[in-house]
Amino acid sequence: MKIAIAQNNYHVGNIEANTNKINEQIIKAKAQKADMIIFSELAICGYPPLDLLEQKSFIEKSQKAINNILMHVEDIVVIVGAPSINDDPQGKKLYNSAYVLEHGQIKKIVHKTLLPTYDIFDEYRYFEPNEVPEVVEINGHTIAITICEDLWDEQPVDQPFAQSRLYKKAPMKKLAGNSPDLVVNIAASPFSYNQEQKRKGILKRNAHDYQIPLIYVNQVGANTDIIFDGASKVLNTNGEIIKQLKRFEEDFDIVTLEKIEKQGANIQNPSETRIQQIHNAVVLGIRDYFKKSGFEKALLGLSGGIDSAVVAALACEALGSKNVHGLLMPSEFSSDHSVSDAETLALNLGMPHHTLAIKEIYNIVNSTLSPAFPNNNFDVTEENIQARIRGLLLMAYSNKHGNMLLNTSNKSEAAVGYSTLYGDTNGGLSPIGDVYKSDVYAIARYINRDETVIPAGSIEKPPSAELRPDQQDSDSLPDYDILDRMLFEFIERKQSVDDLIGMGFNKQDVLKVTHLVNINEYKRYQFPPILRVSSKAFGMGRRYPIVAKY
Amino acid sequence: MKIAIAQNNYHVGNIEANTNKINEQIIKAKAQKADMIIFSELAICGYPPLDLLEQKSFIEKSQKAINNILMHVEDIVVIVGAPSINDDPQGKKLYNSAYVLEHGQIKKIVHKTLLPTYDIFDEYRYFEPNEVPEVVEINGHTIAITICEDLWDEQPVDQPFAQSRLYKKAPMKKLAGNSPDLVVNIAASPFSYNQEQKRKGILKRNAHDYQIPLIYVNQVGANTDIIFDGASKVLNTNGEIIKQLKRFEEDFDIVTLEKIEKQGANIQNPSETRIQQIHNAVVLGIRDYFKKSGFEKALLGLSGGIDSAVVAALACEALGSKNVHGLLMPSEFSSDHSVSDAETLALNLGMPHHTLAIKEIYNIVNSTLSPAFPNNNFDVTEENIQARIRGLLLMAYSNKHGNMLLNTSNKSEAAVGYSTLYGDTNGGLSPIGDVYKSDVYAIARYINRDETVIPAGSIEKPPSAELRPDQQDSDSLPDYDILDRMLFEFIERKQSVDDLIGMGFNKQDVLKVTHLVNINEYKRYQFPPILRVSSKAFGMGRRYPIVAKY
Repeated sequence: MKIAIAQNNYHVGNIEANTNKINEQIIKAKAQKADMIIFSELAICGYPPLDLLEQKSFIEKSQKAINNILMHVEDIVVIVGAPSINDDPQGKKLYNSAYVLEHGQIKKIVHKTLLPTYDIFDEYRYFEPNEVPEVVEINGHTIAITICEDLWDEQPVDQPFAQSRLYKKAPMKKLAGNSPDLVVNIAASPFSYNQEQKRKGILKRNAHDYQIPLIYVNQVGANTDIIFDGASKVLNTNGEIIKQLKRFEEDFDIVTLEKIEKQGANIQNPSETRIQQIHNAVVLGIRDYFKKSGFEKALLGLSGGIDSAVVAALACEALGSKNVHGLLMPSEFSSDHSVSDAETLALNLGMPHHTLAIKEIYNIVNSTLSPAFPNNNFDVTEENIQARIRGLLLMAYSNKHGNMLLNTSNKSEAAVGYSTLYGDTNGGLSPIGDVYKSDVYAIARYINRDETVIPAGSIEKPPSAELRPDQQDSDSLPDYDILDRMLFEFIERKQSVDDLIGMGFNKQDVLKVTHLVNINEYKRYQFPPILRVSSKAFGMGRRYPIVAKY
Repeated sequence: MKIAIAQNNYHVGNIEANTNKINEQIIKAKAQKADMIIFSELAICGYPPLDLLEQKSFIEKSQKAINNILMHVEDIVVIVGAPSINDDPQGKKLYNSAYVLEHGQIKKIVHKTLLPTYDIFDEYRYFEPNEVPEVVEINGHTIAITICEDLWDEQPVDQPFAQSRLYKKAPMKKLAGNSPDLVVNIAASPFSYNQEQKRKGILKRNAHDYQIPLIYVNQVGANTDIIFDGASKVLNTNGEIIKQLKRFEEDFDIVTLEKIEKQGANIQNPSETRIQQIHNAVVLGIRDYFKKSGFEKALLGLSGGIDSAVVAALACEALGSKNVHGLLMPSEFSSDHSVSDAETLALNLGMPHHTLAIKEIYNIVNSTLSPAFPNNNFDVTEENIQARIRGLLLMAYSNKHGNMLLNTSNKSEAAVGYSTLYGDTNGGLSPIGDVYKSDVYAIARYINRDETVIPAGSIEKPPSAELRPDQQDSDSLPDYDILDRMLFEFIERKQSVDDLIGMGFNKQDVLKVTHLVNINEYKRYQFPPILRVSSKAFGMGRRYPIVAKY
């Protein structure tokens, strides 16, 4: 049996475009004599559809799409992910399902058993879990069809106290009792820089322990903040990966079931570093955010600092240099080298850019405010005024020219709240808001791997917001290498204050930094969507109360 | 058996303050010879604790709090809500539990069976559901302890296609098999203007159908965007409410179990109109948002329009007039009567206020931008510049004086995106972002019920953003009475475009308005927290994708 694997980039909610893509791949698979083609989880509607699933018209549209696909299914079997309706008035209204289509008919609808409801996942908000896993007979083969989390009956723990626990149900164990010839797993498994390794572990263990070949079909592409990296796989019964589709790109391939078992693991998976992975993921994330929302042109403020330089370079790679515009907006506190570094960057990248000094506006804002202010003392108010004038100019440029503003905050800043709300927090998307400052430097060096794109000055000078004379980030924060390790243990690994002190971090630093993280929830609440590249990004996957004391 | 009902206002995460409050009430109940005292759901940590539940140190603190309370429990039984640990490595790490404390010991921990995971609720994110409901013997009485949703085994449907469905488990049915003498329901049931009626229906049905007296203890007070209205109740076996605690206030009362059954329904529940309810809820929401985050003073822009007038009046009621500051920031497009209406309002309320004209800043912003702009044409860019200058001045005032900025957007505007991001969307809290414009008018009239607080001009003039000459909201939108009914059917009741047209709304209006709602998700994503007063507020309870086509 020849089986086609369709690794597609779906657009959430765009059922028409997704269905067309699916139909094209079916035609392609038939032309290549495939007996079966497999699409990823919720392919019809794209993942994650969120509360669109609560709209009756959306579900009806999704069911019409299945009928449309059925017209192309005469001499091929199709496995495709879509929501299906739970007719039982008890329980949730929907299932997260794999439709098995054969001879122009729905042969079987298999429902997902394990519904991830943690971090960015809210599947139990919408779906009823399946209770009785069943195998399906296709072309004389017994096939166990599973959906993403269904294989994750044993979750690897990377947090000391979290949801990374065993599930009560183990659907694969039950399915294995029917001695299937093949396990199919359709997935929408989001990228994070350590996810691919975990995934491989789970897939290998399933194929090896149950001694069944496994085909894993993942979604690729980004939808808002969530990036899917593809890398669909075929594993033999030794748990070896004998085929892997591209990462961060659409791909299509065909395997012969009978050959999987015998085939050795002769492929060399490209082993990307963590920084390369993040780089590639963010480029894809920016590209899809723009393409899928109908924007071509981006805009950002160029300060001469490392963050805006890295975002500019990533955006140029994603959208093309001519589509990424820069505004240089120096104030009296901007150093000469900052302005020249920003200019050099724009020239190196070939970005259109303008320089607009903010001093005049700043002066008039201050004189306008003076009747309402007790004195002329310079404090954080005036620092923020500068950032907000820049935010205002960027948004005006965005409105006039139709460029979407990119936010340039990094994860370290977002964590401790070192940013000005409605100033440098502005933007339609935050590309590096899940990247710690130390990793931003590493990405800069990676961008410069062949030639100097980001000026040495931006990489080497001490980080500064340049909102008052001689300001440096290290005036009030530990150095970034220490800060970032502490933040990682606190945010990703959920270590407590006591745990952090026990690890050897300076107690005063720990108390200060964790307090800053906690009290700045209100600022992050109003952040743009942040491209998720870690296992715990700010945004929908991390839900902390604002008005709280802890 | 004398039973005390403690209806408290808890602060999320503030376990120390919550525990102190609980201990005080225990001492008070003992002084009044109560045999038992009942506190609400997750009282120890406040509801909703969100991802604080994923922190080991937070759970440990919560367990220490139980030990602390035990020291006060010698001659009284305490029922109090707190998270408890699931020792089984399978399933979620925690239960949402009712601790029964007696003779200085934990007598029993009862777990919640039905975990709401829809709208604003994410309980399955954290908690393992209970499988076997059991009654508890207390002082010779058999008591069925349930937690909030546990009684909602039949949900009233107010959306044609949603999660309002039957649960598979019916814990109360099982518990009733043990013929309990009393049902206790500890709850954290959030306010919405139609919730109290639904709640009464459910409580009455349970008491009546099972012929068991029922004590319902709810949380009161607001935590961030979620408001709890209290109104704890005692019902006799006829399903009649024989006692109801205060709404929107802390309260404490004692009932005698033996008397409940015989007692007739002699109480008159105050019947508040929908507008009164919303008014009272928003005042509580503002007050708690400020108090619990340590702010005393608010700030808002006064445009002379109805929205800022209503927010100002509500804030003055919540915080006291001297703590609510106003900025009047007229532009060349502001009408004379707008400025005079704003001044009159500030005088009527006794609010400190300043007038800061924005024309000079506006001119310099335009001249600064001109090298980057193709021409001097006035379009939406220049409209937004005015709104953003106002946002900037408000934030500067906020920074300098320590006043928290209140957002003044209403739900109709937030729905169709008629607001300027980083301009009039600014604020720490949106008090009326879940109130449709027509209801804002009704609240204004209610505020004016005894004397004119909000000037007639603000209520009577046609709504306008006053960002260009002779602008009116009705230039590009249906009148608010039509718009708001359409939005209600689309957002609260999730009707489709076809449904709306079928109801008689103008097709072009429906297509335009629903499109505007859908494409403005990006703007709402960056909104401040919105006080929830309806069954479907923008915010955490409504999760739509940004980069999507539908």
